[in-house]
Formats: sequence, C-alpha cells, structure tokens
Amino acid sequence: MNVQQAAHAFIGAFVDELARAGVRHVCLCPGSRSTPLALLCADHPDLRVWMHIDERSAAFFALGLAKATGEPVALAGTSGTAVVNFMPAVVEAYFSRVPLIVLTADRPRELRDVGANQTIDQVRLYGTHVKWFVDMPLPEASAPLVAYARMAAARAAATVKASPAGPVHLNFPLREPLVPLPGPAVDWPVHPQIVAGTRTLASRQVEELARQWRRVERGLFVCGPETPAAAAGDIAVLADKLGWPMLADPLSGLRAPGSAGVVDAYDVFLRDETVAAALTPELVVRFGAAPVSKALLQALQRWAGVPQVVVDEGGGWRDPVLTAGKLLHVDPGWLCRAVLEALQVLGAPEDGRGAGPAGRERANSPHWRELWRRLNDEVRRVLREAAVQQEGLFEGRVFQELAELLPDGAALFVGNSMPVRDMDAFFPAIQRRVRVFGNRGASGIDGVVSSALGVSAAWSGPVVLVLGDLSFYHDLNGLLAAKLHGLPCTIVVVNNDGGGIFSFLPQAEVPRHFERLFGTPHGLDFEPVVRMYGGRFTRVRDWAAFRQAVQEGVAGRGLYVVEVPSDRARNVAQHRDVFARAQAAAREVLASCTS
Amino acid sequence: MNVQQAAHAFIGAFVDELARAGVRHVCLCPGSRSTPLALLCADHPDLRVWMHIDERSAAFFALGLAKATGEPVALAGTSGTAVVNFMPAVVEAYFSRVPLIVLTADRPRELRDVGANQTIDQVRLYGTHVKWFVDMPLPEASAPLVAYARMAAARAAATVKASPAGPVHLNFPLREPLVPLPGPAVDWPVHPQIVAGTRTLASRQVEELARQWRRVERGLFVCGPETPAAAAGDIAVLADKLGWPMLADPLSGLRAPGSAGVVDAYDVFLRDETVAAALTPELVVRFGAAPVSKALLQALQRWAGVPQVVVDEGGGWRDPVLTAGKLLHVDPGWLCRAVLEALQVLGAPEDGRGAGPAGRERANSPHWRELWRRLNDEVRRVLREAAVQQEGLFEGRVFQELAELLPDGAALFVGNSMPVRDMDAFFPAIQRRVRVFGNRGASGIDGVVSSALGVSAAWSGPVVLVLGDLSFYHDLNGLLAAKLHGLPCTIVVVNNDGGGIFSFLPQAEVPRHFERLFGTPHGLDFEPVVRMYGGRFTRVRDWAAFRQAVQEGVAGRGLYVVEVPSDRARNVAQHRDVFARAQAAAREVLASCTS
Repeated sequence: MNVQQAAHAFIGAFVDELARAGVRHVCLCPGSRSTPLALLCADHPDLRVWMHIDERSAAFFALGLAKATGEPVALAGTSGTAVVNFMPAVVEAYFSRVPLIVLTADRPRELRDVGANQTIDQVRLYGTHVKWFVDMPLPEASAPLVAYARMAAARAAATVKASPAGPVHLNFPLREPLVPLPGPAVDWPVHPQIVAGTRTLASRQVEELARQWRRVERGLFVCGPETPAAAAGDIAVLADKLGWPMLADPLSGLRAPGSAGVVDAYDVFLRDETVAAALTPELVVRFGAAPVSKALLQALQRWAGVPQVVVDEGGGWRDPVLTAGKLLHVDPGWLCRAVLEALQVLGAPEDGRGAGPAGRERANSPHWRELWRRLNDEVRRVLREAAVQQEGLFEGRVFQELAELLPDGAALFVGNSMPVRDMDAFFPAIQRRVRVFGNRGASGIDGVVSSALGVSAAWSGPVVLVLGDLSFYHDLNGLLAAKLHGLPCTIVVVNNDGGGIFSFLPQAEVPRHFERLFGTPHGLDFEPVVRMYGGRFTRVRDWAAFRQAVQEGVAGRGLYVVEVPSDRARNVAQHRDVFARAQAAAREVLASCTS
Repeated sequence: MNVQQAAHAFIGAFVDELARAGVRHVCLCPGSRSTPLALLCADHPDLRVWMHIDERSAAFFALGLAKATGEPVALAGTSGTAVVNFMPAVVEAYFSRVPLIVLTADRPRELRDVGANQTIDQVRLYGTHVKWFVDMPLPEASAPLVAYARMAAARAAATVKASPAGPVHLNFPLREPLVPLPGPAVDWPVHPQIVAGTRTLASRQVEELARQWRRVERGLFVCGPETPAAAAGDIAVLADKLGWPMLADPLSGLRAPGSAGVVDAYDVFLRDETVAAALTPELVVRFGAAPVSKALLQALQRWAGVPQVVVDEGGGWRDPVLTAGKLLHVDPGWLCRAVLEALQVLGAPEDGRGAGPAGRERANSPHWRELWRRLNDEVRRVLREAAVQQEGLFEGRVFQELAELLPDGAALFVGNSMPVRDMDAFFPAIQRRVRVFGNRGASGIDGVVSSALGVSAAWSGPVVLVLGDLSFYHDLNGLLAAKLHGLPCTIVVVNNDGGGIFSFLPQAEVPRHFERLFGTPHGLDFEPVVRMYGGRFTRVRDWAAFRQAVQEGVAGRGLYVVEVPSDRARNVAQHRDVFARAQAAAREVLASCTS
C-alpha cells in the first residue's frame, strides 16, 4: 500500500480510537503537514471539529472546552512554530490538570535536522509540561501498526484523565503525499479500556484520622482552586458534621449552594494581623490547589505551628507555604465519605468536644464556626456597603453586581491578575448554580478570551468573562472564535488602561519608570476591534448601565463586550478604603465576641 | 546586605556587562518577578528599552531588531506562561541564526514545584532551541557572584553571535522584595572579551578546490536565505571570475547591486523538467540555508549525480535534499577570497577551459553563463508581461510593482507562506539597495508583523512588509508596537480571505472539507483594527492606487496598511497561466540556443 493509504489506515485508526475513548471535540488549525489528521477528524461522525487560525488561541480554546466538559479534548496542528504556539495553553493545562491531547504533525525522520523547511525539533517540544510524549511511528497499513495507533489513542485519552489530569503530546511524522486515501481494509479488533482505580486509605488509617479530627474544635477546611467538583458535596457534608468553617476559594466550586459553613470573605479579614492571630486554628485540612488569597497563604504561614493536612489525589505538592505536615494522596470525596462513616461509628468523643456543632458554646464566646460566620457576615456586609459607597465604577463592585445578576446555570470565567483577586474579595457564595472558571494553573493573563469561548462552546447556559484590559488585548485574536463559530459570550473588560495590579505592589513606590515599565498604558479603544469580530460593544458609565448591559449579554446569543472604564490610582485608593473599613469591622466583631 | 541590595549589585552587574558587550536594545514585558531586570535595564544609560504587552509579539519584535542590526538583542519577561509566549520567536531565532538573549525571571528554588502561583518549570524551557541555558544563581552582593554575573552577560552576548548565531536563555531566580536598592559598592574589574576566530582551510585545501573549480565550465553558485551579508560581495566576485551563474534566493541578499551573473527567475524556469535537465551543471556550490524555491530543490535532487558542495561556517547540515557530497565548514567570504587568490596564482588551466568567461563559446551554443542569462532575461520579460496582462489585482504583481517602487535604502520584509514564494518568482534583482528580510528559520506565519516592526525600530529608511491575511491576523497584536513606539511601516496585506497556499496543493483536489479545513475564510475587515492602532488603512482597487498608497506609505512616518484584495481561486489560475507562458518561453530560448 502506498503512503496515502498507509496514512488513511493508521491515522484513521488513531482518530477512531480517540472517538471510541470518549473524545468529542477536536480543535484544529490549518496546515499542510497535518492534512491526514485534519481530514480524518473531519470525516469522523463522532467528532466535532473547531477550526482556529491562531494556534495560541486554538490551544486555549481547547483548554476551555476540556475544563467545561471535564473530558479529553484533542488539539491538532501542523509542524513548526505553529505548534510552539500551543505551548502556553499546554503549560496551563499541565498545572491546572486539564485533559488535553495535543497532536502535532512533523516531518518524517529523514527530513529532521537537515535544514528542511518548517522543521523544528518537536521531540519533547513541551518539555516537562506534558504527562506523556510519543514520537509516533510512520503510518503503516499493517495490523501491528494499526494496533499500535489504537493503543496510543486509547492510552492518550486515559492518561490525560488519570489523576493528576493533564496534557499529553503525540508527534506524528508524515510523508508526502499528504492526502489520505482509503485502501484495502486493515484493522485491529482490540479497543483497550483503561480502568483507573481510586486512591483510598486503609480503614485503620481512616479511623485514625476520624479519631484525631473529632477531637478538634477549631478545625478549618480550606478549599482551593480546582477542588474536584465530584468531591465538593462530600467536603461540605463533612465540614458540617465536624462543625468546621470551610474557606472556599472563588475557583473552588464551593462558593455555591451547599454548606452553611462556607466562608467567602476571609481574603479581606485575614489581612488584619490581629484577626488572623485570633483565628489561629488547631488543625487545617486543605483541598485543591493553593488558594488565590495571599492573605490566606500568609495566615497559613502564621499558623505553621498548627498541624496542616493537604489532600491531593494527584500526588502533587500543592503547598507553596511549606506548612503541610501531612499530605494525603487520596481521593478527597472518598476520604470525606470514609471519615464521615468512621465518625458515625465512633460517636461523640468522651470529653464532649468534637464532631457536631451542638452544645459547644463557651461562656461569652461563640462557637468557633459561629465566630467565623459572624465575622464573615459582618465583613461581607461592610464590604458590600463600602463598595456601593465608592464613587464611580469601583472595580471590586463588578463582582458584587455579577453575584446578583448571574442566572442559575451560568458560567463565570475570571481573568488574572486583578479580576480573580477582586472576585475573591467581592463575590460572595450565592444560591444559584454558577460555575466559576479561571486559568490558575500558571495564572497567565494570556489566552483568557479563548479559554472562555472554549467554555462557551460546551456550555448550555450563558457565559460571562471578566478580565482586565491587558489580558483582553493579549488574546484579542481569540474573539475570532466567537465570530466563526457563533459562540455567545458576555465579556466584561475592566479597562484601567494598563496593568492595574502593579499599583498595589511595592513597584508603585518607585516613581522613576513606573508608568512606562509597569503601568504600560496602551490607550486602546477596543470598540472597533470588537465590531470587527461581529460583536456588540458598550462602555458603561454607571452601574445601572452595567446591569442592563450584562442582562442583555446573558440573554443574547452573540458576543457582547461590556467595558467598565476605571482609573488605576483611584482604584487603589478605593480598595484600600473598602478593605480598611471591612477590617475595622472584623476587629469589632472579634472584640465583641471575646469581651 | 539584604535581598534588594543583592539584586541591585548582581543584576546591575549583569545588565551593565550586557551593555559593555554591545547590547543596545532590550525588549521588555511588564511583570512583577522581573522587576530587578526591568528597572536596572531602564536605568542603564546605554540601553534602549522597548516595552511590549504581548510576549509573543515582544519576542518577534526583538528578533526583527536583532536581524536588522546583526547585533545581540535582549528580551526579558516575567515568570510563567508569559515567557512561554517567547518560544515561537526563540525557535525562529534558533533556525534563522539570530542573536537573541532571552532573560526570564523565575521563583527561587524553594518556590519551584511546590504549587506556587505563576510558577512553571523554566529550566531548559526552550529545549533544544537555544544554544546555551543557564539557571542563574540567586543574586548576591559578593565579588564572586558579581564576577559570575559579568561572565554570564559577556558570554551570553558572545555566544549568541558565535557562528552559528542563535538564542541563549538565562533564567533568573529572584526573591521578594523585588525592587532593587543600591547598597555598598561591590563590583568586579574583569570585563571578559570573547574573541571568536574565523573558520578557514589550509592553503593546500584551498588550492585543491581552486584546481577543481577552474576546470569546471558548467558550475553554479546557489545562494540561499541568510547567506552572510559580509560574504555577498566575495561570492559575487568569485562567481564572475569563474564565469558561473549565481542563483540568488530572494532572502540571500544577493538580488541586489553586484554581480552581473545573478539569476533571479530560476524558480520559474526550473519548474520545467526539460529546462532543468538541459541545465544540468557539472558542479554546484551552495551558500546559506536551503533555498525557498521548491523547483530549485527538486532540480538539485535531479542533479544528485553532480558534485554538490555546501558551504556553512556554522557547521550545520543545510541540505534537506541530501545531495551535498562535500560540506565545507568554513567562512564563505574567506573561502571565496582565498579561492580567488589561488586562481590568480594558478592562471588559466592547460586545456583552455576554466576561470574567466572569455573565449569559451562553443559552436552554435552560448557560453554556460550566457545561456542562464538569456533564459533569465527572457523568462523575466515574459513573467513581467504576463503579470501585467492578468486581470485585476494579481498577487504576483505586488512584488513586481514593489521592485520599481522601493527607494534606495528601503527594507522589505516578506511573509510566509505565499508572499515569499511570489517574491521568489516576481521580484527581480534591482540596482537600488533594498535589504530583504523574512522569517525563514522555521517559516511560520506567526509574528511577522512584530518582526517587521522590530526591523523598523532599527532601520533608517522606509520599511515595507508584505504578508497574507492569515499571517496579518495572526500577529495583529504586533501593531501595538507601531502605536506605542511611533514606528513607521507600510504593510501590504494580500487579502484572499484565507490560506491561499492550499489552493496550490493537492489538498485542493479534495473538495470535501477543503474550504473549512484549509481555505479557512474569516471574513474580517481589517480597517477598524488598523485604526484602533492609530494606523491608516486603504483597500486598493487597481495598481495605480497601489502605487500611490505604497509611495505615500514609504514617504510617511506612521503605520499604513495597504490591502490588496484577491481571490484564491482566480489567483491559482493566474499563477498557472503566468508560469506556463514563462516556461514556454524558457523552452523556446533553450531550443534556439541548442539548435
């Protein structure tokens, strides 16, 4: 059989096995070398192909799709720098544990490293940022090679999902002529299913944990970004049972309907050293990645003398503050259910402390969880009030408004670096089901527009993205996906004409060069480019206009960019004012509770 | 001394030594971790800082600057995916041998691989695509460490220029607080100068080459992209002396004032198999990278039985067609001068053949070089005529027009993938000094706008960029540099609403999916986005308008985008017609010469 028939049999089997393994979406970029991959994906009835022109945007779009579906998404491109452009999203996928199958086309071996056009070194191109790399064999229409292709596809799909989830890279050497042609049937009947077990503990280990934890009154659950969605319910139930507050990162998926013990304003009141000291726990149990809140991370360091446990089914080391004395490499949902069962068997501890919130109020001092609740409620109230009292369009208020505007079933994508911090402070736990997404694996400001549109591609409800102007500019190209694929998205651009976060950092106190090196104003009016991509654009002047625009956006079927103009200097002053008032309120609550 | 003083001494010494080693330009992107690098570069009186927001564009801008100046350019960014975005340009720099010093900021060791924010694995981030990687030590204000910093900078600047030139990567772990502060003076008095020798041959080896070459009548010089500019004159003189034609790639720098033996239409007439066969040489000597022309590469393969020599001072393997029987790893300028000298000593060969074009006409057959000249002149004439006769805005004619429009001292940047091929066919050798640039290391369509603006940043004459609409879309972000830094550039966008090159490939014969997977029309009207970046835009309807627009552009001081609308299907038909006529003319010349 000739080269074209070999490509048809081999790549065809690979693509078919991807589909059998559950892959439904393929993001493709145009290219010649990748022709067999492109044509055979497009031919497959179970695969939906999403075309993109800019590979960087394509990869972030695939990332968003995979985040939204939780399922492996394929991303394919041609040879050369084209697929180097995939790398920012590959790195993000690696650190945020997203199942991305990256397929690159390459020259055959005999054209590598001999000066051939568009030929780079694609072997281990993404370095340590993929879980698995395969330099595939040349296509061949033989049973052993077709078997190998099916194995590789099945394994890729399983590997990206295996905990910790993450990207894999398969590099396909392909010879000309590149158009695949069907030949005599060659196939292989095995479609390997990979069954991944769940990491669990022995009963003895669980019992020991249960015995320890039931004796702890001042316990804390901390749920960071990427807390597994499947575990959220179990974590909340266990937190309730133990009577411990649950600090929920905005990206934890837990600022949502569920436990009454959710704390959502800790980022603000833990900034206060008196408050953080008074809240020193006896034990901290952490889930998910390191929290966004710097105040919480600093509090964890302040509490370094307290036993801290990190639960990570992926076996990573999600502890940049180096305070974890115990790492549980075990499925968090399973763990919570198992501990709960063990607690029920054990009953109440002998000294009357431990499991269950009832009957543990000390004289003049509210119960531990009640103290957090009072602090949280009061701080949240003052924050809300203070935010509303700020003149003009205070950036923090964007999230406060969205918390009221977003309908049930919405997805909220939040950009780095200021928006996610503002969300942490100003977006409370709400009763509607709003799924929150962000790129916190590597926390880049790149690719955010594309990631959100990737979510939109797989989301049935409205999708709202909030990001800063630098981040919006960085991925303007991503807007093409909205135009080409008719994807609805409401994009709130908080435009303070530059890098807002730097005004909060010590760099702001170095006036020489500050504006040029850190402020980086660009003076762009985004309206024309939004229109170029077929979107609507509005620059709001007040909150009534903001609310109306967002409501129109979420009700609409297209791209709607809502710009919230801001001023970096004023924004810092407003944040400081709001936080100072909230922290004063926290100290008052503390004083009244301990007096 | 504290962290801030250590950073000041250590990074300050590094930056100062970069400047001493000849670095003049630093492309910077905003970030927090990179603060010491940013502030100390901005403070240095001998460095010019160019701010960019999108790291991908920043890196291509730096690449263009380094191409234009031929000197090392520094590129610095913060940690995480930010610096992953540098990679497409780093890969291009590696393969096109451009001296780029990439500086990345990183977390200190104790924050790596422990889940810290914005922390990825930056060790050997660019893999095999840099010549040198250093994971720098933490800053320290001690003489040994300051000495190390000066060594690293001097060595980086020398390494990027050492043949083969290319990028290096230095990764700087930096601790908070990040603002550098001057402390007690700590310095080191050594400023190492690296003197790189030139690769030469022994006299005996040169004499042997001279003896061989003087006996060859039907010799050919082939000058590919990146033929060293310093060698161009010597190559041309030797070609004259030997009486050999010199096939000059559009990116060779040799389609310019110089040798009378320049052949510039070979891409068209070598497509014809009869012509290619009739032109079989006795010996081929190649300089630079593999030529853009597929027809020439195929001819080299057809001529595989003929001795072929590749000259590469960089010691690479620039021979994808695998026809080189001898590789000379020697400085091409030196080689040509040495062979010329040896030829003068040797005088004319005994059999009357060899050096010098005089007196070698055979009966009824023009001398070898004269045959190439006649073919070239006639094919060029027919091409010109046929291009002019095409209806509407024929894409190939863009370069024919530019060859007449570009003033002396202009720079012409040519995009991939159709423009460079059109240039190969339609841009003749001209008598004005026009320097041609392109990204042919990896031949990506990414980053072309930024690369051209990087050239503009260092170019005193007008800069014209020609690229396709996909390539323009891919790097629209690059236009911000024109706005922020007031860089003049005339950008000719050949807009056929999609990937024009695919219509020439076999994929075009697969009607199912063709338009969606390969044509990829986007329907974008670029006018609004050009205006957003403060540029002028015009869509020309005829060649008079084109000429006027380009003339305005090159006379102006700003960004001017001149769109040439085209149609992919018509474009293919027009190319085929033009080439068919030119090839027929070539066959006629051949028949008349050999009859």
